[in-house]
Amino acid sequence: MTNAHTEVSAEQAAREEELVERVVRSFGGCQDPRLKELMTGLVRHVHAYIREVRLTEEEWRGAIEFLTAAGHITDDRRQEFILLSDVLGASMQTIAVNNRAYGEATEATVFGPFFVEGSPEIANGEDVSFGAVGEPCWVEGTVTDAGGRPLPGARIEVWEADADGRYDVQYDDGRTAARAHLFTDDEGRYRFWAITPTPYPIPHDGPVGAMLDAVGRSPMRASHLHFMVAHEGCRTLVTHIFVRGDALLDSDAVFGVKESLVKDFERHPAGTPTPDGRVLDGTWSRTRFDIALAPSGA
Amino acid sequence: MTNAHTEVSAEQAAREEELVERVVRSFGGCQDPRLKELMTGLVRHVHAYIREVRLTEEEWRGAIEFLTAAGHITDDRRQEFILLSDVLGASMQTIAVNNRAYGEATEATVFGPFFVEGSPEIANGEDVSFGAVGEPCWVEGTVTDAGGRPLPGARIEVWEADADGRYDVQYDDGRTAARAHLFTDDEGRYRFWAITPTPYPIPHDGPVGAMLDAVGRSPMRASHLHFMVAHEGCRTLVTHIFVRGDALLDSDAVFGVKESLVKDFERHPAGTPTPDGRVLDGTWSRTRFDIALAPSGA
Repeated sequence: MTNAHTEVSAEQAAREEELVERVVRSFGGCQDPRLKELMTGLVRHVHAYIREVRLTEEEWRGAIEFLTAAGHITDDRRQEFILLSDVLGASMQTIAVNNRAYGEATEATVFGPFFVEGSPEIANGEDVSFGAVGEPCWVEGTVTDAGGRPLPGARIEVWEADADGRYDVQYDDGRTAARAHLFTDDEGRYRFWAITPTPYPIPHDGPVGAMLDAVGRSPMRASHLHFMVAHEGCRTLVTHIFVRGDALLDSDAVFGVKESLVKDFERHPAGTPTPDGRVLDGTWSRTRFDIALAPSGA
Repeated sequence: MTNAHTEVSAEQAAREEELVERVVRSFGGCQDPRLKELMTGLVRHVHAYIREVRLTEEEWRGAIEFLTAAGHITDDRRQEFILLSDVLGASMQTIAVNNRAYGEATEATVFGPFFVEGSPEIANGEDVSFGAVGEPCWVEGTVTDAGGRPLPGARIEVWEADADGRYDVQYDDGRTAARAHLFTDDEGRYRFWAITPTPYPIPHDGPVGAMLDAVGRSPMRASHLHFMVAHEGCRTLVTHIFVRGDALLDSDAVFGVKESLVKDFERHPAGTPTPDGRVLDGTWSRTRFDIALAPSGA
């Protein structure tokens, strides 16, 4: 990366470079080689950034205030630092680096800040919504390894926002809804009722929202349903499926959309029998998501 | 900066690069050109870092947890993000970028997290310590412009840790001590009593301290006395003076030491008359710091 501000004198540049090397040397005694690599790389990029943009002291104070505000709004239910990482594409880049393309294995996407441990278990064919408002959506598919062999007993964790655009943890009443886990059957198949994903904004009443506003970016996420799929011997997959035709696919606030994860959600009118032989009062949708897991360590 | 991990396939590299460009493009509509420059540079460096070090998802979570802990320990009196910036040399680099070498103008150094607004005013010759424990230290000098012309009425703000290594704001009793401001006299001279600076650790019971410990770095700062000097038409100077002979001059935790700021502190035995004609029960020290301010906008 080049320095666009060429007016810096040789003496000034030498002072700045000497400081970088002094800071790097301070990590010279670190006994953990990986930690040393992480800290040294961090120092080099932080200093290169400050020097390239010629960061002003006022801008530096702005950054300190931003981080302080992000820290103060963060609690057990709100994670502003993950949001920050998400809207800078840093989460997605970390996922890209750690989930290398492997044959036909299903692609990963962002984890997001709304996963919580301890979701209820459901049987195949049951409903993950637990009362969350939204149009019913039948989701089915198979879980296989990268060679197409079915994986019985794969653990599938699912979570999503309701039709009002909120996850259960964003309500103050302690509810658990639109969140569950289940296991594939003996043939690696799964099926459950959820709700048709709808677009929603990431929480934008904090410093990250203010930043998006200042740069003219939307906080809206493309409609999606979260999956985390695990099986022994396989790389755990964290991903979403997206809704084909959603107008937000090209401007997802966290850069999570991948073409391979965009699925058809067929809409069915009220009264059409459902895959499990029910007749619903309203419309419902149906989608299929076949999942292939890369081997561990791929 | 080169990628040390050459095993990344061309397809994988292309995916990662495409993501960087997608994130950069998301700031394309920003109406503030400086903000656009700052965000674009930030995105490029954050992504380059993640790709170079091949950041793992566990390391990413560690970073989120570190920032969260830093945010939660930060309050009106404790500023962990400034500490973080300081120990990475980022504060000092920002100061270097904004306080370019200007003739004989006195060099700047880190602001630190312990300045507070609203210090008491003292007259020349009075004592800034307000009861803070420590050996008395007579400090005197002149404030001039970069051409050596005395500057009457220059505002000098002074703050320091006590001999127990703590600033007033680190006590729970709300005290104001070892902190004051005064003005140069008609000939640009100043003089005051303070306490002889002693080494102390930066607050190291939080995440920044844990990081220093993990990398084998000391949290100790070289002994110093803070100055902030302002005069109309001049670049405000934020600096320290350091004590010649201090064993920590080469390993200051925040990289604040500059040779030009290391001063002689003469020690005087008990009973030796002081510059203002007093006789003290114990030892005292004396130093001189002549300050030259660069012009505004230098």
